[in-house]
Amino acid sequence: MYNFEYHNPVKIIFGKGEISKTGINIPAGSKILLTYGGGSIFKNGVYDQVISSIKGFEVIEFGGIEPNPHYETLMKAVEVVKKQNITFLLSVGGGSVLDGTKFIAAAAMFQKGDPWQILSKHMPVEQALPIGAVLTLPATGSEMNGNSVVTKIETTEKLAFGSPKVMPLFSILDPEVIFSLPEKQVANGIVDAFVHVIEQYLTFPVNSPIQDRFAESILITLVEEGPKVLANRADYEAAANFMWSATMALNGLIAVGVPQDWATHMIGHELTAYHGIDHARTLAIVLPGVMNIKRELKKDKILQLGERVWGIREGSTDERIDHTILKTIDFFESVGIPTRLPDYGVNTDTIDTICSRFKKRGYKIGEKADIGPEDIRMVLESRL
Amino acid sequence: MYNFEYHNPVKIIFGKGEISKTGINIPAGSKILLTYGGGSIFKNGVYDQVISSIKGFEVIEFGGIEPNPHYETLMKAVEVVKKQNITFLLSVGGGSVLDGTKFIAAAAMFQKGDPWQILSKHMPVEQALPIGAVLTLPATGSEMNGNSVVTKIETTEKLAFGSPKVMPLFSILDPEVIFSLPEKQVANGIVDAFVHVIEQYLTFPVNSPIQDRFAESILITLVEEGPKVLANRADYEAAANFMWSATMALNGLIAVGVPQDWATHMIGHELTAYHGIDHARTLAIVLPGVMNIKRELKKDKILQLGERVWGIREGSTDERIDHTILKTIDFFESVGIPTRLPDYGVNTDTIDTICSRFKKRGYKIGEKADIGPEDIRMVLESRL
Repeated sequence: MYNFEYHNPVKIIFGKGEISKTGINIPAGSKILLTYGGGSIFKNGVYDQVISSIKGFEVIEFGGIEPNPHYETLMKAVEVVKKQNITFLLSVGGGSVLDGTKFIAAAAMFQKGDPWQILSKHMPVEQALPIGAVLTLPATGSEMNGNSVVTKIETTEKLAFGSPKVMPLFSILDPEVIFSLPEKQVANGIVDAFVHVIEQYLTFPVNSPIQDRFAESILITLVEEGPKVLANRADYEAAANFMWSATMALNGLIAVGVPQDWATHMIGHELTAYHGIDHARTLAIVLPGVMNIKRELKKDKILQLGERVWGIREGSTDERIDHTILKTIDFFESVGIPTRLPDYGVNTDTIDTICSRFKKRGYKIGEKADIGPEDIRMVLESRL
Repeated sequence: MYNFEYHNPVKIIFGKGEISKTGINIPAGSKILLTYGGGSIFKNGVYDQVISSIKGFEVIEFGGIEPNPHYETLMKAVEVVKKQNITFLLSVGGGSVLDGTKFIAAAAMFQKGDPWQILSKHMPVEQALPIGAVLTLPATGSEMNGNSVVTKIETTEKLAFGSPKVMPLFSILDPEVIFSLPEKQVANGIVDAFVHVIEQYLTFPVNSPIQDRFAESILITLVEEGPKVLANRADYEAAANFMWSATMALNGLIAVGVPQDWATHMIGHELTAYHGIDHARTLAIVLPGVMNIKRELKKDKILQLGERVWGIREGSTDERIDHTILKTIDFFESVGIPTRLPDYGVNTDTIDTICSRFKKRGYKIGEKADIGPEDIRMVLESRL
C-alpha cells in the first residue's frame, strides 16, 4: 500500500434519542446559525428535538438550502453570518444541507475575494467556522469528512472542495430519522454510499487487504440491509446498519494508502448540473459505463468485487467482468433506480456538451488520470 | 446495535520514511521528554531518524521503560517531567513504552495524591501532557487509543486505565521498523492483535454486520499476512498490512455499538503479573479456555468465526465449536506461541492464587459479567 496520513477528529454520536445531545456538544456561549433544507425537519420531529436540546443558546435560522446546494443561496447565509456575528453553524439535514453549511463556514471567513474561488480555483481554506451536524438522511458521508459539493446556478457548474477545516466537530446520527424518509431518498442513499465505496476500491490492486475487505464489508452490508430498509422503513436495526454503512463509506478510512478513481462522480456531477438528475442516480447511470470502458485497467478489482460481493466465480475473465457489471446494474435497478440516460430523457446533445466542457478543462480523470473527453463520450454513449 | 459515541482524533502518519515527519508534528517551542525502552532504537536506526527530525527542540531522554511498564520506573519519569518543565512527551518504542508514556502524561498532572489511584481506583484523568508516538512494534494498538496498562512491582498488580486525554496527538507508523524485530516479538504482535479483535467480536450477536465484517477482515488479514512477516521480515508489504491490522484491531472502531468481553485479557494480566509471561502469550493460553467455558453464551459468534475466518461449515454445532477452538489454537502454535500453562512452567498453585485474587476483588468479568472465580478456575484448569 502507499504511504498515507489519516486524521479524522469528527465525534460521532450514534443511536436513537441521541439528538438530545446536540446542545451539550456545542461550545458554551456560541451564537448559532441553524441551517436546514426544505422543511422536512418540521414534519419528522427533528426540528423540535434539536430546538429543545439547544435551549439557552442564541439561535438564528437559515432554511431553504436546496438539494445540490446553490452557491447563490449559500452566499445569502454568509451575509447573515457576518451581520449577526454567528460563531457556530448547526446543520440539521442531509448531505446537501451539510455540504452547503461547510461552504458557508469557509466562505464566511474567506479573505481573498469571491469565495467561489475555493471551488473554481481550489484556493485553500485557511479558517472556517465550527460546524455541528444532525443528520437526517444517510447517503453522502458528509457527516464524517471535510468534503463539500456546491452548484453555481449562474454557470451550471457543480464543483467540489475539501478541507479538514470544515470537518464537523460532531455529527449526530439517529437512525430513526429514516422512518419518515420517502422511498426515493432511501434508494438514492443506498446507491450513493455504494458508489462512494466503489470509487475508492475499484481501481488497481496495491496489496491492501484491510482496505479491500473493509470496502467489501460495506458493499455487502448495503446490499443486504438496503432492501430491508426499503421494505420496512420502521426496521430500526436495518436503518442503523444502513446509516453506519453510509458514514463508513466516505470517512477516509477505506481510502488510506490506495488509489482512488472518482471519474463516475465527476461525470455524474455534469448530469446533475445540466439536467438536475439526483446525484445518486447519475452515479447509477455512469458507473456501469466506467466499469466497462476501464475493464482492462480495473480487471483485478472487478473480478474481486464479482467474487467477494456478488459471488461470481465461474466463466472466463471477460464473462466474469460482464457478469459483475450486470449484477451491479441489477442491484441499482432492484432498489428502484434506473441506470440508462434515456430513462431520464437525456440524449446525445448533452453528451456533446459534457465532452466539450471536459475538453476545455484540459485535465483527464480516473485513478490513472487517463479518462479524457473521448473516453467520457464512450462511457456516456454506452449508457444510451 | 447499541447506541455509541466514537471520537478518535489521533493523526496516523503511515509508511516508509515517515519518521522524518516527527518534528513537524510537535508544537513549536515544546520541551520534549523522549521516552524509550531497552535501547533497540539505537540499533535499528529509529533513534537517529527521530533525533534528526526533532533538531531545534530541547530534548531530555528517559530510557529503560520495561515491557509491562513498571509504575516504579514511570514515577521516576514523572519526577523528571516536573523538574525539567517538560511540555511534550515523545514515545519512541512499542506498546509498553507508549502505555508507560500515557501514564507519565496523566500522572505528571494528577492533583489528587498518588497517581496509582488512576489505575487502582479508576480516578479520572482530568489533564495530561500531550503525547506523540513513533511506533517500533505493531501489536498493542496503543498508538491509536487512550488505553494503558501498568504493572506495580511492589504488589505484583497489572492494571489498566483509559482516557481520551492520553490519546496521542499523532502516531508515526513506519513498517520498516519490523525488518529488525526478533521472531518472538512479531509472533507476539500477531497474537496480541488477533485477540484484541476477538475480545470485541466473540461475544453475542447484536445485529452489527459492519462491525462484524471489519473484525473478520482484520482477523483474516492477520492470519494471511502474519506468517509472511515471520517468514521474511524484509517483506515490506506484508509488514505494512500487519502493522495496519494491529492498529485497526484496537482503535475503538470495531467496538462501536457492540458488547465487549476482555475476560481473556484480565485473566492473562494475572499470568504476566505473577510469572512475567509475555502479554500475548498469556492471551494465547487463556483464550481457548474462555471460548470453551463460554461456548453456550458465545455460540453464534464462535460459529460465525469458524465459518468466516476458518472456513468451517461442516458438523454439529458442538463439533464446529470444537473445530473453531482447535483452529485458533493451531494458528497460535503455528506462529510459535505455546498455548498451555505447563509450556510456561505454571501449575495449579498459580491457579489458586489467581482465583483468590479475583474473589477478593469481588466482581465478575466477561461481556455478561458472569465469569467469576470458579469459572476462571475452570478456564485455567482447562489449559493445564
